[in-house]
Amino acid sequence: MRNIYLDHAATTPLDGKVLQAMMPYLTTAYGNADSRYALGRQAAAAVQSARDCVRDLTGGSGGELYFTSCGSEANSWALKGVCAAQYGKRNVIVLSAIEHPSLIRAAEDMAPFGYETVLVYPDGLGIVQPHSVEKALSGRAVAFVGVMRANNETGVVQPAEEIYKVCKAAGAFYFCDCVQAAGAMPLGQIADGISVSAHKFYGPKGVGALWLKKGAHICRLVSGGQQESGLRGGTTFVAGVVGLAEALSAACRDMHDNNCRIAAVRDEFVARVLGGVKGAFVAGDRAHRLAGNANIAFPGCRGEQIMIGLDMRGIAVSTGSACSSGASKPSSVLLAMGYEEDVAASCVRFTFGRENTSEEAAVAADAVIAVVKELKERGSL
Amino acid sequence: MRNIYLDHAATTPLDGKVLQAMMPYLTTAYGNADSRYALGRQAAAAVQSARDCVRDLTGGSGGELYFTSCGSEANSWALKGVCAAQYGKRNVIVLSAIEHPSLIRAAEDMAPFGYETVLVYPDGLGIVQPHSVEKALSGRAVAFVGVMRANNETGVVQPAEEIYKVCKAAGAFYFCDCVQAAGAMPLGQIADGISVSAHKFYGPKGVGALWLKKGAHICRLVSGGQQESGLRGGTTFVAGVVGLAEALSAACRDMHDNNCRIAAVRDEFVARVLGGVKGAFVAGDRAHRLAGNANIAFPGCRGEQIMIGLDMRGIAVSTGSACSSGASKPSSVLLAMGYEEDVAASCVRFTFGRENTSEEAAVAADAVIAVVKELKERGSL
Repeated sequence: MRNIYLDHAATTPLDGKVLQAMMPYLTTAYGNADSRYALGRQAAAAVQSARDCVRDLTGGSGGELYFTSCGSEANSWALKGVCAAQYGKRNVIVLSAIEHPSLIRAAEDMAPFGYETVLVYPDGLGIVQPHSVEKALSGRAVAFVGVMRANNETGVVQPAEEIYKVCKAAGAFYFCDCVQAAGAMPLGQIADGISVSAHKFYGPKGVGALWLKKGAHICRLVSGGQQESGLRGGTTFVAGVVGLAEALSAACRDMHDNNCRIAAVRDEFVARVLGGVKGAFVAGDRAHRLAGNANIAFPGCRGEQIMIGLDMRGIAVSTGSACSSGASKPSSVLLAMGYEEDVAASCVRFTFGRENTSEEAAVAADAVIAVVKELKERGSL
Repeated sequence: MRNIYLDHAATTPLDGKVLQAMMPYLTTAYGNADSRYALGRQAAAAVQSARDCVRDLTGGSGGELYFTSCGSEANSWALKGVCAAQYGKRNVIVLSAIEHPSLIRAAEDMAPFGYETVLVYPDGLGIVQPHSVEKALSGRAVAFVGVMRANNETGVVQPAEEIYKVCKAAGAFYFCDCVQAAGAMPLGQIADGISVSAHKFYGPKGVGALWLKKGAHICRLVSGGQQESGLRGGTTFVAGVVGLAEALSAACRDMHDNNCRIAAVRDEFVARVLGGVKGAFVAGDRAHRLAGNANIAFPGCRGEQIMIGLDMRGIAVSTGSACSSGASKPSSVLLAMGYEEDVAASCVRFTFGRENTSEEAAVAADAVIAVVKELKERGSL
């Protein structure tokens, strides 16, 4: 059986060249980057070079780049750290209802300390409208605003530039979770804080980063030594940050070509599936979307059963995000967009990547069509 | 020039066999451990197996094992998470004055939220006496007690079993930072919470773990999805946790033999240095100490200059911990033990590991003697 991987939003394979760049730091160059002898300085130089590279490819030189262990840590830290720095002054957190659990739950974690959360709902296409954010900000002492760059389930790209303007006008800190977007679209000057995660763009698991505008006030989440300007403790995962930088560089360098090819393969797949399954449709805005994403609703089926049927055919797809896979409830993102529960539960997320081919798209589409047909024949809803 | 690495308390080289165990998860087995198709289940099985292994080799089956990104995260999470769970009920944090910055600074970070910290000082040999902890607990609403298993600078082993009894009697949560001890001594039933860090025992950087007694109340630090029973978000660093388990297994399996050999090499080194440098002495208790550690005071010299002199000869040692290397102040651990500033600033930490030989010990000791002689001749204090 041939395996086809269509869950690149969950994680991507580690690029062989990235692993190659990491290898010295997994073998001979094992120094602690905080140590002051030669072996430590060698590690520190690699970390500094990675830091400069990732800073330039995220928010740029107007900010500082801090390494974290993942996107969730970067998100949690941004929210909890910025809110803690406003303790006793600003106590309102504004989040879109389609944020990642690392922000939604971080906000919940702050509730006992007197922080209130206001959720902003997207429209039916999955877009968080700037005027909705503006309304939520009005008359409130807002410590933190979180609206992601691109959604992890629908791939829908959010109007971050306009939301940033609205936040600036209100004097509120705007954080943009770029975990899905990094490497797939340019980031630039879109927020006061930006998070990325290496394993979403062919880098290693176990490493992410938080970019913060210069002068931003943030408290520590992971306390410790002098690492990360004293703001994030823990011995630096040298191989990891080197891999993050290498992977992000490659993704940004080849972004245009990759996106063209990936979107073409994705579009072939979508056309074939929609042509073969009556009533199926793409969830969310199709014009503003990451190149690799196709979240498809199969009304009358359960997405989970399609996922299992495809798994038995060697095809990896998901329903909702991997982070929510413990839960059997329909996607909160799709519900927030106004979908009925049964339609939301019928959705399957297909996310394409660099190594997928047209041929794979065709094989996978035919498998989807066959699985849905089987399920409908068995009447197993 | 030959390089001799004597800073194993800062970090250790990654064991080749550990890297080998990690490699599948850095290449073909790239699934997200939360994904439910075959590639994800393969990752999940590896994570579960690593979790069981590390749980059994830390606090055992009476608790739960959570993976973190490092020892500092495990320490910060334990302190902040346990304290947050006691918010409005217990607000006192009791720490030994020789705890790692990840606990000392985590406690500082809790101060704005109404938490008070009481420091317990060690005796002159660097041992935190249980009766001193008992005194600190008396009459206070203590949320969290932190006294490490073995100190990162002196290597002195603390009476954790007795301290645990004292904490149990007072109904206080006892946390034992085992980052330096793990792999070097058995851990067992010594606390309500235990932290470890893979790169201290020839595992990879970027991964640690927190063991918590069953039923312990803790709030999240890194929020996110359903990972780690919903208590620690972030896509699992599969290769990292596999490496952690592999490294800890090997360290525990070979503990006795390794310790005998390492202590013998360390003792040869210490005897040669003390024989060759008038007035030099070992800081802290020599009877209760990790096998690899020798923290030596060189009154009349500055440890930093010795470190630099040895670095120029290819020998890697440190003054204080790597985590504090940004600071030029004398070690707070040695000051807490009652050393005068100039004596504390004269100390150098030599920490031996598996690959060090008797011959290296002799070469390094002779280099130390030569460097100290040079410094004294130059009168450069």
